[in-house]
Amino acid sequence: MVQSIDLPRNESGIATALGVLKQQFGDRLHTGQAMRNQHAHTTTWIRPQAPDAVVFPRSTAEVSEIVKVCATHKVPVIPFGTGTSLEGHVNAPAGGVSVDLTQMDAILAVHAEDLDCVVQPGVTREQLNTHLRDRGLFFPIDPGANASLGGMASTRASGTNAVRYGTMKDNVIALEAVMADGRIIRTAQRAKKTSAGYNMTQLLVGSEGTLGLITEITLKLQGIPEAISAARMSFPSIDAACRAVMTTIQYGIPVARIELLDELNVRAANAYAGLALPEVPLLLLEFHGSDQSVREQTEMFASIAEDVGGTDFEATTSTEERNKLWQARHDLYWATLQLRPGAQGISTDVCVPISRLADAVTGAQAKAAELDLLSPIVGHVGDGNFHCLVLIDMEDADEVARAETFVAWLADEAIAAEGTCTGEHGIGQGKMPYLVKELGATTEFMAAIKGALDPQNIMNPGKIFSR
Amino acid sequence: MVQSIDLPRNESGIATALGVLKQQFGDRLHTGQAMRNQHAHTTTWIRPQAPDAVVFPRSTAEVSEIVKVCATHKVPVIPFGTGTSLEGHVNAPAGGVSVDLTQMDAILAVHAEDLDCVVQPGVTREQLNTHLRDRGLFFPIDPGANASLGGMASTRASGTNAVRYGTMKDNVIALEAVMADGRIIRTAQRAKKTSAGYNMTQLLVGSEGTLGLITEITLKLQGIPEAISAARMSFPSIDAACRAVMTTIQYGIPVARIELLDELNVRAANAYAGLALPEVPLLLLEFHGSDQSVREQTEMFASIAEDVGGTDFEATTSTEERNKLWQARHDLYWATLQLRPGAQGISTDVCVPISRLADAVTGAQAKAAELDLLSPIVGHVGDGNFHCLVLIDMEDADEVARAETFVAWLADEAIAAEGTCTGEHGIGQGKMPYLVKELGATTEFMAAIKGALDPQNIMNPGKIFSR
Repeated sequence: MVQSIDLPRNESGIATALGVLKQQFGDRLHTGQAMRNQHAHTTTWIRPQAPDAVVFPRSTAEVSEIVKVCATHKVPVIPFGTGTSLEGHVNAPAGGVSVDLTQMDAILAVHAEDLDCVVQPGVTREQLNTHLRDRGLFFPIDPGANASLGGMASTRASGTNAVRYGTMKDNVIALEAVMADGRIIRTAQRAKKTSAGYNMTQLLVGSEGTLGLITEITLKLQGIPEAISAARMSFPSIDAACRAVMTTIQYGIPVARIELLDELNVRAANAYAGLALPEVPLLLLEFHGSDQSVREQTEMFASIAEDVGGTDFEATTSTEERNKLWQARHDLYWATLQLRPGAQGISTDVCVPISRLADAVTGAQAKAAELDLLSPIVGHVGDGNFHCLVLIDMEDADEVARAETFVAWLADEAIAAEGTCTGEHGIGQGKMPYLVKELGATTEFMAAIKGALDPQNIMNPGKIFSR
Repeated sequence: MVQSIDLPRNESGIATALGVLKQQFGDRLHTGQAMRNQHAHTTTWIRPQAPDAVVFPRSTAEVSEIVKVCATHKVPVIPFGTGTSLEGHVNAPAGGVSVDLTQMDAILAVHAEDLDCVVQPGVTREQLNTHLRDRGLFFPIDPGANASLGGMASTRASGTNAVRYGTMKDNVIALEAVMADGRIIRTAQRAKKTSAGYNMTQLLVGSEGTLGLITEITLKLQGIPEAISAARMSFPSIDAACRAVMTTIQYGIPVARIELLDELNVRAANAYAGLALPEVPLLLLEFHGSDQSVREQTEMFASIAEDVGGTDFEATTSTEERNKLWQARHDLYWATLQLRPGAQGISTDVCVPISRLADAVTGAQAKAAELDLLSPIVGHVGDGNFHCLVLIDMEDADEVARAETFVAWLADEAIAAEGTCTGEHGIGQGKMPYLVKELGATTEFMAAIKGALDPQNIMNPGKIFSR
């Protein structure tokens, strides 16, 4: 199993920086063990590595002050949003200061006429959507957890709506960030298009805090659709379900969500949410548009899916029924953990071209069976992205070893299928070896950029690159 | 007027490199003056600066060889597609080797099931669309000129369809590139989503050949819509037309094209194409979708536009009529030049948030009038992007000075309105001072990246950054 690696600590620098920060931030700098442990918490199997202190800035200027102090004393700076990242992103392998951005949670502007808004990084996606609802607007990116928008930008998050609305890559217009020397930059203006130099916005989106700390985000918004319809359909096999997905995408049906649950997930959802879905592969869908367009999309999908053997089609425009369906989807992580109480879930995150999806999912099922692992699969299949949640007993060394074999095999298979080891979770500490397998020499140019923008390697060290 | 600046030449390095390349490429290395001049040609007012030689590689391996030779001898490498860039991108201010990619024009793969394709950089957008037509697919980015896809990626081009389909930023999935030391990298796999490290794809898209030379492009494709409808509508004022655009976008009508022509452009189009359009501000539109959806979109737009005083609405689903309308749009550059025969056209390229569009366009008209300049305006207004084509007599120093004042004023105004000096043309040699005004310290981090990836500054030097 890939484990987090401890990096050399700069003890004297850390001590000095903490002293300076204590003077500046008083009781907003915390060094108690409980607070430190909480900021190393990851919803993953990666071992926690607590920072030396946690600080709660309230402004970009304060973030800049923190980074300047850390730069002066060569101390790591680890940004923290809600701690829901999955690959050890908030760990502190060389110690240092966790910068908790939850107090920077202001929605600074909503430009309804431009379909954009400007937020601080601690704003969560649910907070933003609650704020926007009365304006008839919404922010579509939905990674499941109620993550902070700064964290979502940092990991290039996506989720269930990405098939229609794209990922954070497609929805961040501009960023303000504090760079490794404490300087504050703005990566772009608020115009929808730009060819003004290098795309610093997209360089920072997905950089996991390793190049700069995001302090403000300009996001694209969407109008709440006139009509929303949800649907579900059962399939005799994963292959049939994947064929339905592929044809739906090829036909250009602008489906807003198209999620696959394998039979194990359906069983878990039935048990957890008291549903009675047929325990075979299931697609959950959502359609957005005008009344007419939603009706048309729903009918087209049903017809496509029936052609490949889909059954038990149900569609609804009732908000209540729709929410029930999607609540079951969002609770899947917890539901599947109940398939084996006490087990630890290891989430994988491969993404392949959609033509390779059926083979990839059925291959993963077969490999898990071969290794005698319980590994339900759920997928944002319109994008070719799926997660195997391997449920293992961490005390069983043999099982851990088999899980390690599986995770590595899956990454290799995805890469061989022209896919990626991570569709939306990021590299963090967990996927460094796969990144090199996937992109080879390209990672050396990434490291050169890291070296140029953060020569002291203080910005979230030990993530993406193993140093 | 911002002029191209000559940079120091490495005479002995150039002589040695040309000798080595002559041995390797034989008669595919050209040093004749006519060929050299042709590769400094720009459809702009920027003074041509010819390279010392032009070489025609046929493979990525050959491009790598060329760059290695140039790296060894510290000689500039200037990529060349079709030469339709507007800001001096193909100029050779320090001399060097123009790498003409027209012989790398193979369409390597079309993955219809994944809605993507892989092309060499010399493939033009029209060539690709001709190839795709029988498969029911198309590539939507349409900068007007029949540009090469490598060039379009390099400048982050867009055009009339961007309001619906995005820019090159949104449509390049992955790149292969030869970096400054001759190494070949692939920036991403072919999966639709990825969180695998820094977004090297989007760092290279729009980098104008200054970080690496693009040798292969994986592009997103679209299915040809079931129905396409074109429409036009006249307006009593620019302000009314812009209000129609703003409301259309806010309502979420997925308009595929929405182009503004001011009265001068309409007059030019009437004269050039023998049309009889009312000589007032005009919107040209296109709608894509199912029959039903296209009808719905067309009706919704007409209703919105009538509310703000739009008149003379005409819509058509006839391919012939539609092509006639869009041919007139695409010929506008030549048509407007006829408004003042012999004049040189200077194209500007600002882009502002759509809420600022009406003020920006009417402000530009007033400023041009104040400076006694003839400057028709055309815009991809759904994105807030518009071009003033200043028609000047380059022999008239006073007029050139007034044009310079206008161009600088326009960039300043756009930046003050949270917009950009360039929506789609790029920085090149022409917009370097505005880039600094627009992004300040951010440009220093761009320069740091340039320094890290191209420490000898051989990749298209003197573009984006003034060195």
